[in-house]
Amino acid sequence: MKLANYLNGQWLEGAGEGIPLFDPVTGEELVRVASDGLDLGAGLAFAREHGGAALRGMNYESRAALLGRIAEVLAANREAYFDISLRNSGSTAADAGFDVDGAIFTLKTYARSGKVLGAAKHLQEGGRVALAKTDVFQGQHFLTPLTGVAIFINAFNFPAWGLWEKAAPALLAGVPVLVKPATPTAWLTQRMVQDVVAAGILPPGAINIVCGSARDLLDHVGACDVVSFTGSADTALRIRTHPAVVANSLRVNIEADSVNSAILGPDATPGSAEFELAVKEIVRELTIKTGQKCTAIRRILVPAANARALADAVASKLAGMSVGNPRSEGVRVGPLVSRAQQAAAFEGLAKLRQDADVVFGGGEDFTPVDADPAVAAFFQPTLLLCDKGLAALYVHDVEVFGPVATVLPYADAAEAVAIARRGRGSLVASVYSGDTGFLAELVPAIADLHGRVMVVDGAVGNQHTGHGNVMPTCLHGGPGRAGGGEELGGLRALAMYHRRYVVQGGSGLLDALSAGAADAALLGA
Amino acid sequence: MKLANYLNGQWLEGAGEGIPLFDPVTGEELVRVASDGLDLGAGLAFAREHGGAALRGMNYESRAALLGRIAEVLAANREAYFDISLRNSGSTAADAGFDVDGAIFTLKTYARSGKVLGAAKHLQEGGRVALAKTDVFQGQHFLTPLTGVAIFINAFNFPAWGLWEKAAPALLAGVPVLVKPATPTAWLTQRMVQDVVAAGILPPGAINIVCGSARDLLDHVGACDVVSFTGSADTALRIRTHPAVVANSLRVNIEADSVNSAILGPDATPGSAEFELAVKEIVRELTIKTGQKCTAIRRILVPAANARALADAVASKLAGMSVGNPRSEGVRVGPLVSRAQQAAAFEGLAKLRQDADVVFGGGEDFTPVDADPAVAAFFQPTLLLCDKGLAALYVHDVEVFGPVATVLPYADAAEAVAIARRGRGSLVASVYSGDTGFLAELVPAIADLHGRVMVVDGAVGNQHTGHGNVMPTCLHGGPGRAGGGEELGGLRALAMYHRRYVVQGGSGLLDALSAGAADAALLGA
Repeated sequence: MKLANYLNGQWLEGAGEGIPLFDPVTGEELVRVASDGLDLGAGLAFAREHGGAALRGMNYESRAALLGRIAEVLAANREAYFDISLRNSGSTAADAGFDVDGAIFTLKTYARSGKVLGAAKHLQEGGRVALAKTDVFQGQHFLTPLTGVAIFINAFNFPAWGLWEKAAPALLAGVPVLVKPATPTAWLTQRMVQDVVAAGILPPGAINIVCGSARDLLDHVGACDVVSFTGSADTALRIRTHPAVVANSLRVNIEADSVNSAILGPDATPGSAEFELAVKEIVRELTIKTGQKCTAIRRILVPAANARALADAVASKLAGMSVGNPRSEGVRVGPLVSRAQQAAAFEGLAKLRQDADVVFGGGEDFTPVDADPAVAAFFQPTLLLCDKGLAALYVHDVEVFGPVATVLPYADAAEAVAIARRGRGSLVASVYSGDTGFLAELVPAIADLHGRVMVVDGAVGNQHTGHGNVMPTCLHGGPGRAGGGEELGGLRALAMYHRRYVVQGGSGLLDALSAGAADAALLGA
Repeated sequence: MKLANYLNGQWLEGAGEGIPLFDPVTGEELVRVASDGLDLGAGLAFAREHGGAALRGMNYESRAALLGRIAEVLAANREAYFDISLRNSGSTAADAGFDVDGAIFTLKTYARSGKVLGAAKHLQEGGRVALAKTDVFQGQHFLTPLTGVAIFINAFNFPAWGLWEKAAPALLAGVPVLVKPATPTAWLTQRMVQDVVAAGILPPGAINIVCGSARDLLDHVGACDVVSFTGSADTALRIRTHPAVVANSLRVNIEADSVNSAILGPDATPGSAEFELAVKEIVRELTIKTGQKCTAIRRILVPAANARALADAVASKLAGMSVGNPRSEGVRVGPLVSRAQQAAAFEGLAKLRQDADVVFGGGEDFTPVDADPAVAAFFQPTLLLCDKGLAALYVHDVEVFGPVATVLPYADAAEAVAIARRGRGSLVASVYSGDTGFLAELVPAIADLHGRVMVVDGAVGNQHTGHGNVMPTCLHGGPGRAGGGEELGGLRALAMYHRRYVVQGGSGLLDALSAGAADAALLGA
C-alpha cells in the first residue's frame, strides 16, 4: 500500500515503487510512501491562495474552535494511532501515549488559550507612537498573519506530537500548513491528516502532507512562508543554506537535538528526596520512547562524592526493566525506530566509550524479549560514567539518539556550570536541589544557553512535569547546538506566524486599522 | 595615515599598506584602513569576557545613562563629523546632518526610553504558568541579556547612524559591540568610536571597531553572539551561509536594500494637497544623500491619468536643484560615495532604461558644479517612466543605489497592491491619499510585505516624519528582498539582544529569580 499525499485539496499518489516503512521489531514491511511526480510548487501556491485566504477570513476564536474539533477527531481515533505507533515505531502504550496524547493535549491547550484573542483577525502591538506634536501623525505597530505557508519538516520520533505542536499555533494564527514527516514513521502523521481531512474540519488547502522525499519543495518558497524543521544538524544546514530560503530571507525555525543535562545539587545525597527524584527521572528519560527524544537527558552532572552512588542506583533500576517486543506482557522498553538508528547508536556509543566506562548495558550480551536480534532494532539501555569532566572528547558533543546517558562527576557549582554550558546550547537542563545558594549560582549562569531549566526539590516531589516533557504553555527550543529555535510557550508561538509592521499616519486612519484588533501583549502574557 | 582599530581595550594598527579612502569629489586620498595581523578571535573573547560582564553588571537605567553620555560626546564633536562626511562621503550639510544628527537623536531616544526598565538586570515575561494543581510547580519565562558580542557589519551610506542605531539597543541590553564599518566611509565611524573611547564612557571591551577587511571574524562567533548586517544581498548570503554562523545557530539580522514604493491615491490629483506632498517627498528622497538610502523611494505608483503630471512636476523640481561639489554655494545634491558606486549606478540605470523612458536626467550631458567629472563620482538625479506595469523586467528588482526612481502608472487599487508586492518585500511604502476606501483596501493588502507603511494626506501635511526617515521608535526592516530583519521600534529592539528561557520550579525559586526583574511587556508597549 502506498500512502497518498494531500495537496491542492486532493489525495494524490506519488509515482514509482515508493519507499518502504518497516516494523522495527519484526522487520516486516508495512506501507510505502512516494512523492515523485507531485507538483509541490503548485501545492504551495494552492495552500497560500485557498487555505491561507480561508483561514485568515476567520478570526482567532473560530480557528481556536477548529483546533478543538481536530483534537476530538484525533481522540476518537486514538486506538488506531496506538496501533500504528506499535507497528511502525515499536512503541509501548506509554510511548505511543507520550506522542499521541501529547498531540491531543497540545491541540486542546491552544483551542482553549486561543479564545482569549476573540473575534480579532490581527493584532495591535503597543500604544500609539508620538511622531508629531499632536495626534495628526502617529505610529502604530501591528502583527498580521503571514500570507504564506508554514512548512514543517519533521523528525521520526514524534510523528503525532511533532505535527500538532507546530500546526496548532500556525493554524490558530491563520497560516496553512504543509507537513513533510520523516519517512521512517510517516504513517501515523499521514493517517492523522487523513482523519482530519475526512472530518471536513479545515478549509481546502489549510492542511497538506507530502510523504517521502521533500524533493524540490524548498525551491518554491516565498518571502511570506516559514519553515520549521526538527531533526539533525546536517539537514538543518541544508535548509538554512538553501538558495531560495536565503534569497527570500525566509523565517526558519530549527529545533535540533542537544546534549541536555540533569544536574544534582550538593544536597541531592543518597537517601535524600532530591536524589530519589533524580534517579526516577533519569530512568524515565532513558527508557520512555527508548531515549529517542530531543529533550532526553544525555549528561548527568553529580557532585563527585555521590556520582558512583547515583550511577549504581540508576543501573539497578535499569536492570529491572524488560526490553523487547512491546506486544509482550511486562515489556517496558521497545526498540529504536529502525536498523539505521540502531547502527548510528552503536557508532555513537563507541565514541562515548573512549571517554567513559559502562556502568550498565552496552549491549554486547543483550537479547531482547520476544524478538529476533537479527532483524529487530533494539538497543539496551546504557549508563556510562566519565571522570574526564570538561576534558572529555565526545561526551559533550555526541548525542546517542537512544537510551544512553553518561554520569559526569563535578567538583563545585562553577564546574557544573562549565560542563552544562559545554553542551554549546541545549533544549533543557533539569536540576535536583533545594539548596537556594547553589540554585542562585547555577540557574542564571546556565540560562542563556538553555531554552528551559526545570528545578525539582523535595517540596515539588512528583508534581513536576518532567525533564523531557514539552508543555505547550512553556517555551520549547534552545540556542546554538539545539538549533536556535523557539516553539510553543503558549501564545508566544503565534509570533513566528505573524509579520510585525508599523503604520505611520493620522489618528483616523490608525483608528480604522486598529478596529477589532486584539492586543499583541496577550502573546507574551 | 592609517586609522587604528580598537580591540582588547587597545588601539591597534593593522599591518601592511592598508586600503585607501577617497574624497568622492576630488579623488584625493584621505586616510587608510587595515585589519591585517589582528587577532579577531581574541578581540571577540575580550569583548565577551570584559565588556559583556561589565555591561551586564550594570542595570538598564545606568546603561541608558551611558547612551546619553555618548550622545553628548558626539554632539560636542559634531562639526568634526560634518567635515569628515563632507570629505569622505561628499555630503552636503543636510546629508551629514541626516546621518550624524540621526545618530545623536537615536541615542538620546534610547537614553530616555531605556530609563523605564529601571534598576533591573533582566526581564520577566508574562505571569506564572500553571503546571500543577497548586503553586508547588510553575513556569516563568524570562529574557536575559546575551552573553556574547553584537557584531555589526555595516553599510557605507550611514557611517554614523548605522553604528549607533544598532549600538544603542545592544548596549542598553547589556551586550558589547564590535563594528566593522564599510571600508569606503569607515573614517567617520572610526572617529566616533575614538571620541567615545577617549571620553572613557564605556567599560573596556564594550565597544570595538575593526576597519578594512572583516577577514576571519565570523570564524570566531559563538552561540551567544549576534550578527547584524546592513548591505547587499550578496554579502547577506555569505554571512547567512557561513559555516560558523550556521553551526552556532547564530542570530542574524539582515537589512538589505529594497525597491520601495511611493503610492499616490486616486484623490492625489494635480493641485491637491496629497499630490503636492508626494512631489515634495519624492524630490527629497531622490536628492537627500544623493538617493543613497536603503529606504529611498525607487518606484512611484500613480493612477494612470495623473502619472505624466506627477512625473513632470517632479522633473521640474529636479531641474532647479544644483548638483555638484557640496563646498560650492547653492549646491543641493552631492556625489555618490565612490567611483565604484557611480559605475554600478550607471549599470543599473541601463537596465531600467530597457523598461522605462527617461523623463529627467540620465546623465549623458551632465556636468557637476565645481568638480571634475573625470575623477568625481557624481550621478545626475534621474526620473523614469515605465508603462509596462508588472510586465517590466527590471524596475521591480533592480535598485539603482543613487538618485533614481521610476514612475509606474496603475489602473486601480488592485494593480497598485500587486505592483507594491512585486517588490518581494520592502522596508517601506508611503501612500499619499486621504481616500479612506482606497486606504482600507491598500494598506492591509501590502502590510505583510512591508516593515513600515507611511500614509500622508492633506490633514497630516508637512508634519509627517518622511518616507525615508527611520524613527527610533518605529520598526525598521522588512521581509524578503529587504532582508527579513527587525531593528529599532523603540524597546522592541532589545529582544534581539536577549535570550528567552523558561524556568519550571517551585514558587520560592521563581520568586527569587524574578526579584528585581523588569516587565518584558515594556519592550512592546
